[in-house]
Amino acid sequence: MTRLYLDRNAATPLLPEVLAAMLPFLKESFGNPQSLHREGQTVLEATEEARESVARLIGAAADEIVFTASGSEANNLAVKGLALASRVKGTHLVVSAIEHPSVLNAARALEKLGFGVSIVPVDGRGFVDPAAVEKALTPKTTLVSVMLANSEVGTIEPVAEIAALCKARNIAVHTDAVAAAGSIPIDVATLGVDALSLAGAPFYGPKGAAALFLKKGTRALPLVDGGIQEGGRRAGTENVAGIVGLGRAAGIARERLAERAVREAALRDRLIDGVLGSFDHVVLTGSRDRRLPYHASFCVEFVEGESLLLSLDMKGIAVASGSACSSKSLKASHVLLAMGLDHALAQGSLVFSLLEGTSAGDIEAVLAAFGPIIDRLRRMSPTYTEFLKEKRT
Amino acid sequence: MTRLYLDRNAATPLLPEVLAAMLPFLKESFGNPQSLHREGQTVLEATEEARESVARLIGAAADEIVFTASGSEANNLAVKGLALASRVKGTHLVVSAIEHPSVLNAARALEKLGFGVSIVPVDGRGFVDPAAVEKALTPKTTLVSVMLANSEVGTIEPVAEIAALCKARNIAVHTDAVAAAGSIPIDVATLGVDALSLAGAPFYGPKGAAALFLKKGTRALPLVDGGIQEGGRRAGTENVAGIVGLGRAAGIARERLAERAVREAALRDRLIDGVLGSFDHVVLTGSRDRRLPYHASFCVEFVEGESLLLSLDMKGIAVASGSACSSKSLKASHVLLAMGLDHALAQGSLVFSLLEGTSAGDIEAVLAAFGPIIDRLRRMSPTYTEFLKEKRT
Repeated sequence: MTRLYLDRNAATPLLPEVLAAMLPFLKESFGNPQSLHREGQTVLEATEEARESVARLIGAAADEIVFTASGSEANNLAVKGLALASRVKGTHLVVSAIEHPSVLNAARALEKLGFGVSIVPVDGRGFVDPAAVEKALTPKTTLVSVMLANSEVGTIEPVAEIAALCKARNIAVHTDAVAAAGSIPIDVATLGVDALSLAGAPFYGPKGAAALFLKKGTRALPLVDGGIQEGGRRAGTENVAGIVGLGRAAGIARERLAERAVREAALRDRLIDGVLGSFDHVVLTGSRDRRLPYHASFCVEFVEGESLLLSLDMKGIAVASGSACSSKSLKASHVLLAMGLDHALAQGSLVFSLLEGTSAGDIEAVLAAFGPIIDRLRRMSPTYTEFLKEKRT
Repeated sequence: MTRLYLDRNAATPLLPEVLAAMLPFLKESFGNPQSLHREGQTVLEATEEARESVARLIGAAADEIVFTASGSEANNLAVKGLALASRVKGTHLVVSAIEHPSVLNAARALEKLGFGVSIVPVDGRGFVDPAAVEKALTPKTTLVSVMLANSEVGTIEPVAEIAALCKARNIAVHTDAVAAAGSIPIDVATLGVDALSLAGAPFYGPKGAAALFLKKGTRALPLVDGGIQEGGRRAGTENVAGIVGLGRAAGIARERLAERAVREAALRDRLIDGVLGSFDHVVLTGSRDRRLPYHASFCVEFVEGESLLLSLDMKGIAVASGSACSSKSLKASHVLLAMGLDHALAQGSLVFSLLEGTSAGDIEAVLAAFGPIIDRLRRMSPTYTEFLKEKRT
């Protein structure tokens, strides 16, 4: 059976060009970029080229890029690093309620060190209201972290507005752009942020390679102290092949961004229209308009998202129910609960994230498979039986 | 010109078997191990197999292995994580003076958070005296970190003795085994340590993949908070290919360890005897007997290690002068200074770390190239001219 993979948020296959760029660094060019001999110096050129490429994707300078091993590490370095570096100035930070666990749990770790954390709510479509952020600011606030786009519901946040009001108060702003980078245009100057996290895995780059943009002059205490790698901001021997792959993926993303977005948005819209038009008691989660081009997410009433996921998997279709980083925790998504969905409905979450190779035929195949699965699962659902009974009476 | 690479501490080429094991995870098996669908679950099996393999190399259980992106990250997770997790018990730690920068600078970062740090000296061959560690312990000490072997001078430390006296006082012991793992037999139970860092890069595994052994029941606060990866001890999407490569390299290291060690020790001894027997004013650094089998390190009087390194590089021979993580900092090695070498002599440091493929002919080639280079550099050295003058008078 041909598999149909629609879980880009969790992982993507490497583009052939990306793998080809990486292979020399898994073979003959094996040196350590910190070594002074030829084996080291040739490799150093490659990691610095990759740094340029990643910087260009977001309108940054190369020396503003710190390579990390994951988006989660970049988020931790931003949140903990910035907060700890400025703790003589203040010990309060503001994050949104729908941040990735790596931002929320980094903030919780800071709470244990005596920081105050304000969690700003979102509306029913997952939007953070800049006015709510403004209200949460205190004279002690040194950092605001609001994601650029949410991987579970696709909503794109008004980060530029939030950054503008923080800048006026000299408060640093971080944005988690892991779900957005490589899919929508990003310019750190336009956004006005001081730090931005991205990872290669969602845009056909390798796992294990990610980056934090740290605006020139922005101090962040390292998570990993030690050697002089990454300008002293992140010690440890560089994952050279991974970094080179990330650089190549960033270069390709920059070239194809607009074309990919138009194509994916059309497929996404067909999927959303098809699902909402064909199946009862299914709601779109997140915003209809300001959403990631590759992203369609739903809550299906009366069924469990995990059952939907496993049933689709058996039909050869791979999707997600929530974020990969919490997929096994069996709790209802904190994102959906923060958006005000009730617990039962939030359990029926399903996320389709489309890939470059996804075709119109694939979308029709999903729509054809989805209906019978929903029907079958609902027939086994006590809450659905209850609902039908009440409806009849 | 054929290059002769003798800088194993900095980087090694992947074994063909290791690359072959990694490739499927850079191609068709691209899933995220946290995904519940088939693409995720097949990948999860591979990372868990790798965990078993790494555990077996050091006599640990699979769930005692936390994958990290580098030895430096493993060291930071151990030192900061263990110290912070037990800070209600006490806020004092003990490290040796010749630890890797990632241990020393992690300890310094803890100092800024209010911890006390005692730095235990070493003798002229780089040995930490267990009695000196014992003397440094206070009722507030919760952690001792002493490396298993030093990458700059090759000395193997009496970690089991140190661990025994700490265990009697209920103090946790971490050992940085990055230079030792895969080269000498390691059994965490025999050593008696609670945490041990290793990395794949020095034993023909990929950069970007390393591990921390954390003994069952040992709590360490994460550096990277977030998702549930690595049992909540290190969040972030796993570097699957890297982890699989590390696992394969660990498996091969386990099979070939004894054979490699015998072979390398013979070549090492020939190199040491050849250098000490042929060139004046060259000293071996570290212990002659208790040293890593692949490791030969020297200080060459009247010349700079960096000039030696670059001259050898031009002759096609790649070696190190100090550790890769501080190779560009241009300071005399803290390891050599701690061993009591004077500053001028410490500047003439040169480290040969042999590889599996190093041949007897390679060692003779090094010996043949080394003499003329020393002579030429000394002819240009004012301190050598001075020395000759004084000798004549």
